[in-house]
Amino acid sequence: MLKVPEHQVAGHIAKDGKLGPLIDDQGRFYKPLQGDARGENEAKFYESFTSNKNVPDHIRGYFPVYHGVQQVEASDGSGELPHLVLEDVVSGYVKPSVMDVKIGSRTWYPDVSEEYFNKCIKKDMATTTVSLGFRVSGLKIFDHQVSGFWRPDKRVVLAYKVDGARMALRKFVSSNSLDDDAVPDCAFASEVYGGSNGILKQLLELKAWFETQTLYHFNSCSVLMVYENESGGDDERRAQVKLVDFAHVLDGNGVIDHNFFGGLCSFIKFIQDILESSDNGHENGH
Amino acid sequence: MLKVPEHQVAGHIAKDGKLGPLIDDQGRFYKPLQGDARGENEAKFYESFTSNKNVPDHIRGYFPVYHGVQQVEASDGSGELPHLVLEDVVSGYVKPSVMDVKIGSRTWYPDVSEEYFNKCIKKDMATTTVSLGFRVSGLKIFDHQVSGFWRPDKRVVLAYKVDGARMALRKFVSSNSLDDDAVPDCAFASEVYGGSNGILKQLLELKAWFETQTLYHFNSCSVLMVYENESGGDDERRAQVKLVDFAHVLDGNGVIDHNFFGGLCSFIKFIQDILESSDNGHENGH
Repeated sequence: MLKVPEHQVAGHIAKDGKLGPLIDDQGRFYKPLQGDARGENEAKFYESFTSNKNVPDHIRGYFPVYHGVQQVEASDGSGELPHLVLEDVVSGYVKPSVMDVKIGSRTWYPDVSEEYFNKCIKKDMATTTVSLGFRVSGLKIFDHQVSGFWRPDKRVVLAYKVDGARMALRKFVSSNSLDDDAVPDCAFASEVYGGSNGILKQLLELKAWFETQTLYHFNSCSVLMVYENESGGDDERRAQVKLVDFAHVLDGNGVIDHNFFGGLCSFIKFIQDILESSDNGHENGH
Repeated sequence: MLKVPEHQVAGHIAKDGKLGPLIDDQGRFYKPLQGDARGENEAKFYESFTSNKNVPDHIRGYFPVYHGVQQVEASDGSGELPHLVLEDVVSGYVKPSVMDVKIGSRTWYPDVSEEYFNKCIKKDMATTTVSLGFRVSGLKIFDHQVSGFWRPDKRVVLAYKVDGARMALRKFVSSNSLDDDAVPDCAFASEVYGGSNGILKQLLELKAWFETQTLYHFNSCSVLMVYENESGGDDERRAQVKLVDFAHVLDGNGVIDHNFFGGLCSFIKFIQDILESSDNGHENGH
């Protein structure tokens, strides 16, 4: 039996009879193929990527595993529809904090319709896409003080300016996220963003690939960050970076994806700044 | 006595009684302060940059030396006007090949007027700015077969698509540039683009700085490339990279210049591709 994903933070949500992704209890994520060309384009990307021998193995790990397209009962009750069957990235996490960050200083690209261009550029200017080269699309933080999840409203998230985005990235790794008056303590920054298995390390691996890869242009694609808040036998955070949302991927045609690459490097600088200031904070006893 | 620069390839040209830059015979370049805010903004940038202790010394060499603002007789006969006094980058070259490449996937930036935005985005889409993250703004190549300069028309240059830009970058380092039927031989690629003092080496130094610098955002700024074609006692090409045109520079405010950085890396990939294919060509005896 398929059900609505509990930890989805951006995109169409399958609730109140709407069409959206579903999950099973085997760690698979069922994403309905959108009616227009987007669904088909995303399926085409996964087919191409999966069979592309020029993609290094260590880079594949940053993409959800693809299990083909399958007809399943849609979440909106409209009967069977084709769904992409993907790895459910947050499956296996008990109390995951999750953030979706859309990378790039534009979400439109050459040869889109004027209508789509106008829609995108308006949103790109209203959010931090143009100014920072990325925007936070959604987040969900496990709060340790109340032992529950905190999830800001989508409108609040999309209204972030530079300081809002920086604050969200600090809160994401703090133990006092829910306290609006407190400075986020970045208590988990070194475990989640830092370290040999941390977010920064993973982003830098992706960066090295994007520096020269000319296979695909990842328009309007997101970096999804996840980590675990359940403290079990070990204190492993299982910090994980995955690229998601490939409905607007185009062939690279011998040109690097300078739009994604520039935005990714800007995002990396934000993570590095948080790591540095939290290091200094600890050293100075703040 | 000031005169019209012989080797300027882009921007306003001081001829036919128009306002434009002038040079003296002491290696200085006099750029009239544009009437609107742009001239003032460029002077402000040079003042800030010159006194900014956070700019590493080895990076300063990639910018023209600044000698202040001075009243000189304008080229359009309108009397004395304030001019930026800069290093004349091509002074001392006898037969320089010169190319101006505007870096970035957009030339507009947040908070510009709607009129300026519309003007920029139209040109950014019509040129390779959006698709490649840079556009060739002008070039002048010394042709060895006719022993004279070849300079394509500005309208031709701005109409380049991906292949046109690639071709121009190949012709720039070829001995048979004027021959439209021949494949550019890239005879000087290894001396000009490659080597320990070559263009690529210099671009990579700039890249390393742009990866983390958050001091300035270099909107609508160009990379100028110059090298010597006069064969003297040594065969030194004196290949040189300089950043020019700072009328639209803004404070970085703690964010990297992801727009310039992404475009610069795309440009670097083009140079690397030419170097690799010309290496292979030599090895295979083509």
